[in-house]
Amino acid sequence: MYQFEPVGIVHSCFKEKFGVPRQPSLAPSALARLELLPPFNSADAVAGLEHVSHLWLQFVFHQSPAASSLKVRPPRLGGNQRIGVFASRSPVRPNPIGLSVVKLDRVSIDAGDVSLWLSGVDLIDGTPVLDIKPYLPYADSPANAVNKLAASAPEWLTVRFADDLGELDSNLRRLIVEVLQQDPKPAYQRPLPERIYGMRLHDHNLQWRYKCEAEQWLIEVVAWQPWRGDE
Amino acid sequence: MYQFEPVGIVHSCFKEKFGVPRQPSLAPSALARLELLPPFNSADAVAGLEHVSHLWLQFVFHQSPAASSLKVRPPRLGGNQRIGVFASRSPVRPNPIGLSVVKLDRVSIDAGDVSLWLSGVDLIDGTPVLDIKPYLPYADSPANAVNKLAASAPEWLTVRFADDLGELDSNLRRLIVEVLQQDPKPAYQRPLPERIYGMRLHDHNLQWRYKCEAEQWLIEVVAWQPWRGDE
Repeated sequence: MYQFEPVGIVHSCFKEKFGVPRQPSLAPSALARLELLPPFNSADAVAGLEHVSHLWLQFVFHQSPAASSLKVRPPRLGGNQRIGVFASRSPVRPNPIGLSVVKLDRVSIDAGDVSLWLSGVDLIDGTPVLDIKPYLPYADSPANAVNKLAASAPEWLTVRFADDLGELDSNLRRLIVEVLQQDPKPAYQRPLPERIYGMRLHDHNLQWRYKCEAEQWLIEVVAWQPWRGDE
Repeated sequence: MYQFEPVGIVHSCFKEKFGVPRQPSLAPSALARLELLPPFNSADAVAGLEHVSHLWLQFVFHQSPAASSLKVRPPRLGGNQRIGVFASRSPVRPNPIGLSVVKLDRVSIDAGDVSLWLSGVDLIDGTPVLDIKPYLPYADSPANAVNKLAASAPEWLTVRFADDLGELDSNLRRLIVEVLQQDPKPAYQRPLPERIYGMRLHDHNLQWRYKCEAEQWLIEVVAWQPWRGDE
């Protein structure tokens, strides 16, 4: 049995599991701050990171239940095909340790607050981080690596915004598109046109629905409203 | 505080820390068997891995001492420059959790023994593995990743074999070259020509020395003998 204490905590735009990108690179506009916890909130611990563009985070899937099965149904395979947990990146696993490569935008050091500012994250707010390592391109990108279960990024749905939604900041629009085009709903679920889906993003409630036009499913954003507690 | 139990144990040709490759890709001929521990020694847990060429292992640096400093001296930087532990891949870190991408050569399933046969490992015999994940090329290889502290694989020393060493199997010769050309000795150490270095590889004692010829350091393998206990 091995015991670990977090070295940092993630502050992220994703406030709940639903809607979190299924891999880190899928939403480059998703920002987060990784706050280093004492005694690691020191300039010493991060010296040299100015030479590094990307980081590996090894973190705890703190909101995922313990694995009760050795097989999982990855959304990528349509949600109805079962594969072994060690052939998947599912958050529900024997040891709930996650692994994500994220972009390091900058490091801030300010009297006891040492933070790593990240983008392209797939991490829920409050995620405990166990280790931070620099990405090493020559070792971490084997040229001949193949994964036939997920050979490339998933196909995107078209995302559009309802006419009556009002103005949204362009960075926010980009984030919303990146998050929704992956289709957050369970892969096996056939959306009914009247059903409204929602997720908490930043301090807002993002709502959307599915439409089928010209035999193509698309997503229409229908609401962006301040979060009002238990919704 | 988070607690994890190993899901598997590594059986590797590297019997001690000294001489283990400093990144996994550096010795493609280094083989290992990852034995899954109960209840994970099941065909279910590995179903689908036949579609996957490489794996991430998240493991415990079980022979490394706890980090006593927030700065380390990576061998890659000559062994005398100190950088933050989170800018390095040093095994001596706040939480001794390692991360290696390895090649999955095959899976064997035989009545209670489920093993993953790996190559290109940088893992000591007996390493406890906490999680196994498939490599996802589209997510794990960011095209624009840069690490100026270690922009490419290290430069190799030339390795030659002493004339009186006798015949060695070609696979073994290749492994020895891959392990030694990285120069296992501490980077700050200036080798004396009379000093013999040794490491345990498989069940043998591998010995070598450093020579300077035409202003170039090279390594000469001087012995390959069965390991006789405490040497």
